[in-house]
Amino acid sequence: MSEEFTHISENNIPHMVEVGDKAVTKREGVASVTITLPASLLKELKASDSNHKGPILHTCVLAGIQAVKKTSELIPLCHPLPVTGVKVSPEIDEELSQLKFIVTVRTDGKTGVEMEALHGASIAALTFYDMVKSSYKDLQITDLMLLEKSGGKSGHYKIQR
Amino acid sequence: MSEEFTHISENNIPHMVEVGDKAVTKREGVASVTITLPASLLKELKASDSNHKGPILHTCVLAGIQAVKKTSELIPLCHPLPVTGVKVSPEIDEELSQLKFIVTVRTDGKTGVEMEALHGASIAALTFYDMVKSSYKDLQITDLMLLEKSGGKSGHYKIQR
Amino acid sequence: MSEEFTHISENNIPHMVEVGDKAVTKREGVASVTITLPASLLKELKASDSNHKGPILHTCVLAGIQAVKKTSELIPLCHPLPVTGVKVSPEIDEELSQLKFIVTVRTDGKTGVEMEALHGASIAALTFYDMVKSSYKDLQITDLMLLEKSGGKSGHYKIQR
Amino acid sequence: MSEEFTHISENNIPHMVEVGDKAVTKREGVASVTITLPASLLKELKASDSNHKGPILHTCVLAGIQAVKKTSELIPLCHPLPVTGVKVSPEIDEELSQLKFIVTVRTDGKTGVEMEALHGASIAALTFYDMVKSSYKDLQITDLMLLEKSGGKSGHYKIQR
Amino acid sequence: MSEEFTHISENNIPHMVEVGDKAVTKREGVASVTITLPASLLKELKASDSNHKGPILHTCVLAGIQAVKKTSELIPLCHPLPVTGVKVSPEIDEELSQLKFIVTVRTDGKTGVEMEALHGASIAALTFYDMVKSSYKDLQITDLMLLEKSGGKSGHYKIQR
Amino acid sequence: MSEEFTHISENNIPHMVEVGDKAVTKREGVASVTITLPASLLKELKASDSNHKGPILHTCVLAGIQAVKKTSELIPLCHPLPVTGVKVSPEIDEELSQLKFIVTVRTDGKTGVEMEALHGASIAALTFYDMVKSSYKDLQITDLMLLEKSGGKSGHYKIQR
Repeated sequence: MSEEFTHISENNIPHMVEVGDKAVTKREGVASVTITLPASLLKELKASDSNHKGPILHTCVLAGIQAVKKTSELIPLCHPLPVTGVKVSPEIDEELSQLKFIVTVRTDGKTGVEMEALHGASIAALTFYDMVKSSYKDLQITDLMLLEKSGGKSGHYKIQR
Repeated sequence: MSEEFTHISENNIPHMVEVGDKAVTKREGVASVTITLPASLLKELKASDSNHKGPILHTCVLAGIQAVKKTSELIPLCHPLPVTGVKVSPEIDEELSQLKFIVTVRTDGKTGVEMEALHGASIAALTFYDMVKSSYKDLQITDLMLLEKSGGKSGHYKIQR
Repeated sequence: MSEEFTHISENNIPHMVEVGDKAVTKREGVASVTITLPASLLKELKASDSNHKGPILHTCVLAGIQAVKKTSELIPLCHPLPVTGVKVSPEIDEELSQLKFIVTVRTDGKTGVEMEALHGASIAALTFYDMVKSSYKDLQITDLMLLEKSGGKSGHYKIQR
Repeated sequence: MSEEFTHISENNIPHMVEVGDKAVTKREGVASVTITLPASLLKELKASDSNHKGPILHTCVLAGIQAVKKTSELIPLCHPLPVTGVKVSPEIDEELSQLKFIVTVRTDGKTGVEMEALHGASIAALTFYDMVKSSYKDLQITDLMLLEKSGGKSGHYKIQR
Repeated sequence: MSEEFTHISENNIPHMVEVGDKAVTKREGVASVTITLPASLLKELKASDSNHKGPILHTCVLAGIQAVKKTSELIPLCHPLPVTGVKVSPEIDEELSQLKFIVTVRTDGKTGVEMEALHGASIAALTFYDMVKSSYKDLQITDLMLLEKSGGKSGHYKIQR
Repeated sequence: MSEEFTHISENNIPHMVEVGDKAVTKREGVASVTITLPASLLKELKASDSNHKGPILHTCVLAGIQAVKKTSELIPLCHPLPVTGVKVSPEIDEELSQLKFIVTVRTDGKTGVEMEALHGASIAALTFYDMVKSSYKDLQITDLMLLEKSGGKSGHYKIQR
């Protein structure tokens, strides 16, 4: 077995890696995801008199928070973890015509919450797509990635940009 | 309320759109997602004598199939749908050094299965990330998008590329 | 066995009633639930300059919609049903100082969606409680009840008030 | 943002409150819910020779226990918590012609189990409704409320009656 | 690919078999499972003055019914199916000192409910084990098998004994 | 109430046993399950040139791992537990013509993981059945049992054979 694939055991079978001997520490994971918006959709979403931006983005935010809690159900080899806090922050960048969701997850646990943050981000973005797909089927979700991670033996990680 | 946001009702509140009057028809959705692989990971994954490529990709495929069935649990305003078949096809493009998952979902239902296909693709990709993240934290998941959709009143849709 | 308890079989054991011979018809269920608010909380919620009423009530609405889809998972003898539409309407009655959630659920199915509507209403109310409980632990949730039901052999039912 | 709404962040968006710095302590929550029974249903339920009271009430009790474990899946901003024990006690008050469910939940955790107790009570009551609704559609579920809470920084709380 | 393994596609990857072209028919599946009881446990369970047999067996029955509804969540390549009725019948055979659970599931669907019946039986048996394991860790669950199946193109199947 | 039935309270009602006072210790549970294979199926599965054995057994293994994480959702009176590692090992015994799955689960918790191991084993076996049932409906799943258990006050248990 290769060192790259720690989730595959020596006899070439997937397993859930044993983490019982790792320390319980405060851990944090931050992930983000990007959707580039056509001008008309950006305008609609930013309209100053818009009162529907609220429910659209709140729906994405809530979907992301709830998805964080379901991560170990969707990602087969993930450990179940007691998350202690979740933030999903939508950010609209008018210049780039982009909507981003930044998801921050914390736990006191034996493994990190990278997957939780990434899962929350992906579901926030898919929820947005779901709500605009009748008019914008060709939107793409991109740059789903880990921004930062801290806690645990491997220490602080921050993406190079 | 804007025409863009069909999931927000006239009094500015999210709702699950009523589809009871739509016809039950055969519907299909196809989505894909892309992960660009560093050379070392591509090599590892393609190694001709590799016997662990199997369990790595099978794990992604199975995660994607199971995610399809859970779509309406994760995407708040999605309708529950009885999917009749799911395929998750991993494709390795050596030239571009990319791994893609193409997900095809079918149903006999009153609404489409776009979200199901997209959800399956996103979870297949996140599952891959989970299994290589100890060595490759900076992998990005990109181009999560609908490729094609058929069935239902809005007819055939195919992405322009 | 008594006629009152159709979910208990002749040998005194719970079962899921067979509905295979019932017709698939359009069915609707409407339920409501009430929370009486202390004056300070009502004021807070109604404040004309309030911009947080949105996320508070949207959170309840989304929780109610998602709960509708999970009804057969929580109520042991409920049949799984493909809901075709869900509306959760919050209503603030200033005179009575009450918040109500009215939940309307539709399906094309072989059994009714009363439990789905009631479940959605109960979760919307509990979600509201969750968000104010740090200051208002003694709020009571009352009058969780079916308002109306149509479709199916038993015909139209409307509560007498 | 108001002090009443701790689940809404300063930028007016729902979040899961961070509890990582709170102490793990033994916590308990007790909730109850009431259903007033028509005379004929009370009689049926209390019939001394009745052997179906068992499965009816056991079904409610089990539904309540299982609901406790699913609380953080239904209430969007609830933290997942490892419950250490659950009791659901049905009580029939013949004088008032009422059925009550008292639910007691315990945990060793960083937040309380009020929502768990309330959720268990609501599902026990809805399960009862489900089993008698063919004859008693107009039953109302009332007085769903927290009776008592202990553990954690905010100390002991007991409802005033 | 072998004919035995219909869930593995020609390129050697698991998939959910497409059933969209199959007819919706009434289908039934019946499964059973057996637990051989030590004399002391049988006696305890059969004690004529026993009033706890009820809750023990009802708990198994309800667990089995609810498991039926979750089959496609647990068995990766199973189709989600709208079950129309479920019966879980416990049977105590004093001569053989055995407890059996017979599970009957019906649907109007495009695929059979064999897996649903088997899953319900396995969970009923495991629930029994859970409740007696403090005293009887060495109980074995055996003979989990399909007894009968009807509906669909492959016609009636009944096990030979 | 009998000593055998610790999950039934003194007033004859199921409850989730309180474990708050038990120590958090490393606990392990090992379970197994057996399927006797007809000669043709064994041959198919063992074929030296077979490249489909992989996906068949990987599907069972992944289903077993994911089932472990869902145990407290399926077994009504089970406590939710943070599993720290899971292994599902398929073993083919050519002489006995048997396929076995051995499931090992670990936790740092207040109760044991016997049910988790047993649940994982049962779902691995049912998943195998699902994939071969079109040709082999009469396969039986047998000898689902706890092999070993350690950690906690009751000490080490190992089945006598």
